[in-house]
Amino acid sequence: MDLHILDHRLRVTSISKSGLVNFTHPLIKLIFLRNRTRCKFFSLTETPENYTVVLDEEGFKELQPSEHLQVESSMWLPLNVVSNGNASSSSQAVGVTKIAKSVIAPLAQQHVSVFMLSTYQTDFILVREKDLSVVISTLEEEFNIYKEEGGESVPVHSQDVSNGLQKNGKDAIHPTVHPVLIPLNQFCVMSLDPDTLPSIATTLIDLQFSTSSSPSQDLDCIKFFSFSLIDGYISLVMDTEAQRQFPADLLFTSSSGELWRMVRIGGQPLGFDECGIVAQISQPLADSDISAYYISTFSFDHALVSSTTTSVKKTPEMWEIHTEYHMIYISKYFFFF
Amino acid sequence: MDLHILDHRLRVTSISKSGLVNFTHPLIKLIFLRNRTRCKFFSLTETPENYTVVLDEEGFKELQPSEHLQVESSMWLPLNVVSNGNASSSSQAVGVTKIAKSVIAPLAQQHVSVFMLSTYQTDFILVREKDLSVVISTLEEEFNIYKEEGGESVPVHSQDVSNGLQKNGKDAIHPTVHPVLIPLNQFCVMSLDPDTLPSIATTLIDLQFSTSSSPSQDLDCIKFFSFSLIDGYISLVMDTEAQRQFPADLLFTSSSGELWRMVRIGGQPLGFDECGIVAQISQPLADSDISAYYISTFSFDHALVSSTTTSVKKTPEMWEIHTEYHMIYISKYFFFF
Repeated sequence: MDLHILDHRLRVTSISKSGLVNFTHPLIKLIFLRNRTRCKFFSLTETPENYTVVLDEEGFKELQPSEHLQVESSMWLPLNVVSNGNASSSSQAVGVTKIAKSVIAPLAQQHVSVFMLSTYQTDFILVREKDLSVVISTLEEEFNIYKEEGGESVPVHSQDVSNGLQKNGKDAIHPTVHPVLIPLNQFCVMSLDPDTLPSIATTLIDLQFSTSSSPSQDLDCIKFFSFSLIDGYISLVMDTEAQRQFPADLLFTSSSGELWRMVRIGGQPLGFDECGIVAQISQPLADSDISAYYISTFSFDHALVSSTTTSVKKTPEMWEIHTEYHMIYISKYFFFF
Repeated sequence: MDLHILDHRLRVTSISKSGLVNFTHPLIKLIFLRNRTRCKFFSLTETPENYTVVLDEEGFKELQPSEHLQVESSMWLPLNVVSNGNASSSSQAVGVTKIAKSVIAPLAQQHVSVFMLSTYQTDFILVREKDLSVVISTLEEEFNIYKEEGGESVPVHSQDVSNGLQKNGKDAIHPTVHPVLIPLNQFCVMSLDPDTLPSIATTLIDLQFSTSSSPSQDLDCIKFFSFSLIDGYISLVMDTEAQRQFPADLLFTSSSGELWRMVRIGGQPLGFDECGIVAQISQPLADSDISAYYISTFSFDHALVSSTTTSVKKTPEMWEIHTEYHMIYISKYFFFF
């Protein structure tokens, strides 16, 4: 398989709920006025805590410094796994499950933090630019690695990268126990022809910019809405209630029309330095070949697991999650998947 | 004829060009998210200098105080002339011309400042709330005057209004000489079904919120774009270049599809205390039965005169305006209309 290091240098930022009004102008521009900006990688995810905005340097220029804007200090690079036709994987699973063993687990073992961004089209693995040499030396046994530069894919090897062989420490991983939350609402992962974006503009604006001033603290149904416009492709993740507000004929999803349940990881904001969280979740999913999307945000991680995956329903413990929907602990329930 | 004092208490405000980004959120809400606001009277007009926003108290609550927001200190009330079928006027003219003699001239004689807001549907005459008694006593000979209150029209007379008969001074008016500018671009006055507003949202956003950071100082073609959403009716005034960016089948205009030339009044910002400016312009137009719209903004006044009115073209002096498009002086050219 091929691994592409995409030609985007990304910032991971967070806008506070109360500060959104100060950023409506650049966000509207980045979402709707493609001709007015040179940003090619843009993602906006609303959670109950804040808005996570991941965007390239051109997009980042549009955001004025403000007390309401937090910026993670690193530059991040998106990686993308491309099946080159003769892949040996027989997995039918989609999303992060496909790359759990080949990418996520090895990076976790090398103590490389990753920021995951699943979309309708693909799964982006964001790594810090300073970790690139470790990433390449870690993954080059499994992958042909290419760096995209100005539209060309250039093969890279660890010796091409300065500091190439200096791997991070190899201490055993002692994963932190994080509580998880499984909210009641069901999510869909969809796409949209960019040319029809104008026709849903006001619905999108309404959903993303009209946060009630007193956000509900009820986490039974979580507010989670993600929009991304990356290299001309749109991806939308929203719950079924939000979906009903869009015209049925414009958004499209996979033919199965699958719905997804969310597992939100983290009781306190996770920060960016811990590694292995995505691996903790994705490895057992991969063991059972269960599809999952995975979306990191500034404070928490979110796995989306198919709500119709029968193998999940087979275990009595999983029933419990489906019927009681209460706070459970990852150390206790993690291996149910 | 009937004169209605509408049930809106309005603020006249101005947002600086550089400060627009701080107000995109409330403006988007007021324009596109009707269900999220109780504002019933909203008007936004972009000129080269700034954005003039006229809105009722509910809408005004959405605007946070800022160094970029100027607020005229008075509360303004909109008046509206309603032909009640048996009007004796035989005029075919539309716009401010119809009310020049009956409303605008008498108010100017009483030194009442008016702020005009012509729309596709009607012409609103805004007067200061404190001038209401003078307005009523001045106009009640000509009109049946009604005050709209909670959906009902209640007849009012000057004795109903406290301070009713205290007219302003009756000094002779010595109108100030203001330069006028007649830009090259042609304007259209249009409307739109509010239900189709979402489908032009991104075009509207692009036009109204994407001011280039270095506004052109070339006034040959003036930037002028006005959007109003008043009691559920939309009115748009834009030049033909902006019009081309909208789908042809959504905006509608009068069957004649008339185009309008702008006469911008004022070389320096006019302020709000001078009176008689609208009268200066509208009276000679009315004398010749020439249709005109009239839109006041925070800094300047704008009359829109039909560009196809042959009676205008008949005079050699008017030719001059149509071919040379240079700065002329109202004292010199005013009576050409």
